[in-house]
Amino acid sequence: MSILVVGSVAFDSIQTPHGQVDHCLGGAATHFSLAASFFTDVRVIAVVGEDFTAEHEKVFSTRGIDTAGIEHAKGKSFHWTGAYHENLNEAQTLQTDLNVFAQFQPKIPASYADSEYLFLANIDPVLQHEVRRQMPKVRRVCGDTMNYWITGHAENLARVLRDLDTLLINDGEAKLLAGKSNLVEAAEHILQMGPKTLVIKHGEYGATAFFSEKSFSGKIKNHFFRAPALPLATVVDPTGAGDSFAGGFFGYLASQPEHTPAVFKRAMFYGGVMGSFAVERFGTERMQQLTRTEIEQRFELFRELSHLDAV
Amino acid sequence: MSILVVGSVAFDSIQTPHGQVDHCLGGAATHFSLAASFFTDVRVIAVVGEDFTAEHEKVFSTRGIDTAGIEHAKGKSFHWTGAYHENLNEAQTLQTDLNVFAQFQPKIPASYADSEYLFLANIDPVLQHEVRRQMPKVRRVCGDTMNYWITGHAENLARVLRDLDTLLINDGEAKLLAGKSNLVEAAEHILQMGPKTLVIKHGEYGATAFFSEKSFSGKIKNHFFRAPALPLATVVDPTGAGDSFAGGFFGYLASQPEHTPAVFKRAMFYGGVMGSFAVERFGTERMQQLTRTEIEQRFELFRELSHLDAV
Repeated sequence: MSILVVGSVAFDSIQTPHGQVDHCLGGAATHFSLAASFFTDVRVIAVVGEDFTAEHEKVFSTRGIDTAGIEHAKGKSFHWTGAYHENLNEAQTLQTDLNVFAQFQPKIPASYADSEYLFLANIDPVLQHEVRRQMPKVRRVCGDTMNYWITGHAENLARVLRDLDTLLINDGEAKLLAGKSNLVEAAEHILQMGPKTLVIKHGEYGATAFFSEKSFSGKIKNHFFRAPALPLATVVDPTGAGDSFAGGFFGYLASQPEHTPAVFKRAMFYGGVMGSFAVERFGTERMQQLTRTEIEQRFELFRELSHLDAV
Repeated sequence: MSILVVGSVAFDSIQTPHGQVDHCLGGAATHFSLAASFFTDVRVIAVVGEDFTAEHEKVFSTRGIDTAGIEHAKGKSFHWTGAYHENLNEAQTLQTDLNVFAQFQPKIPASYADSEYLFLANIDPVLQHEVRRQMPKVRRVCGDTMNYWITGHAENLARVLRDLDTLLINDGEAKLLAGKSNLVEAAEHILQMGPKTLVIKHGEYGATAFFSEKSFSGKIKNHFFRAPALPLATVVDPTGAGDSFAGGFFGYLASQPEHTPAVFKRAMFYGGVMGSFAVERFGTERMQQLTRTEIEQRFELFRELSHLDAV
């Protein structure tokens, strides 16, 4: 089934201990769609500038991603400049040029109206809400956010959270959103804010899903599920790892007829798998070369590294 | 089979956000033995002062732990004063009174000579080496260490590492010991220093085992195994969590006739299980009340929270 994603399509200039790239294709919606495209049909709503060329569009279309919702505006695309130092878990933002993104007003093409899954990538919660409102019939909504919206736009964000099936954030964001220093307490607090399930990403340590009574109509025995991450000797570029996790997770969910706890757990593993590929090269490079066979092989590796009965 | 453990038996005065205790029984050898005693016979080598009473001895004997190797010296026992703040992963040492521990010279009773497993808790590597030297026939040796020995006593520590089956340390210690900021690179480096396997503890995120060609005569498919930790809403007192992990891990190994990769993985889970109990109360309180049934139930919980096929 089709996923509609709304978010940023951008250019990134990135420095890491393994090198640097200038103006490579990036943005949350880009990383999300590429990862999700290995599992299901993806449609993108975003805005780009005149620097977004046919070559960039081809990165999407090669993966079968529908770009009818990518609006082309006068000016330059969103451009992020950042650096990662020894601690690759944390990005240092050096410059943010919103450019055409500053005036972004998501427009949903008629051909997207039958999308059954909606991913609200990390953008202004006012826009997330606006898109959600225009898609009342979607089957499942998953969303992301960040510190900037949590601290400065709490009320707008609260409106989005009330209506989410799954919120995907990281440890720091969860603690900030809940105002709690313990992760389990934070998760319980956030589940009271609306999301039926919460997925907290721990970077190199994997991710934990927190279930509530609403998650599977109460048909779940435990309140947690923890998926591993792959121990990696080389992380070339962590940019987009979280969005690729979301793409693998939600893409797999959208590909399944039923959402049982077992399917949800597999989705968590696929999230980790896609995140582990994303960081192997700069920008979207690795996703552009990836095959479904590699994905399945790594899924098995994730199982072996976490399951007692694996060889 | 019997485990001999050498390390500290001490008194701890601890402050955490959940309360405080004064002079409660603690020390690495204490936490290790209590956890291991649920799986196998344990013998302790340590030194205590006159403040160590029959009541304290009973904590060991009630769990069937052999205390013939606990030397009673004139003066006071080792006393540690520490605090944990919001971030319960990190202890702040307020005071360390070595007392009788300053002159500790481990003596191995004749009745301990047939021990087949040896655990070298976190003490001066000179003493670790001395005990190891006196037990040439043990089947398996596992050890711990800390930043103080890594930075200031590197050569003595290197001698201990060369002869270890398994080294159990945390993320920070592993990175410091290897001089690497990436955990996988650090692990590969440490495996070159001697240990056949390395277990790195990630606190609330679980633990990862790193295997080498020497781990199981090369009979292992992958180089990692990751065990979860239980997401806990309340961590009353993290003191001794790492030693309890070690006790569960090594205690289970010692209880098994063969050390296959499957047994090693289960040992990692038992380590996590015992660590998760240890932090539920102050000091040794939880271990004193624990039952094997509770351990098995939590083992199943660990499986459910990490395995795809669990209900």
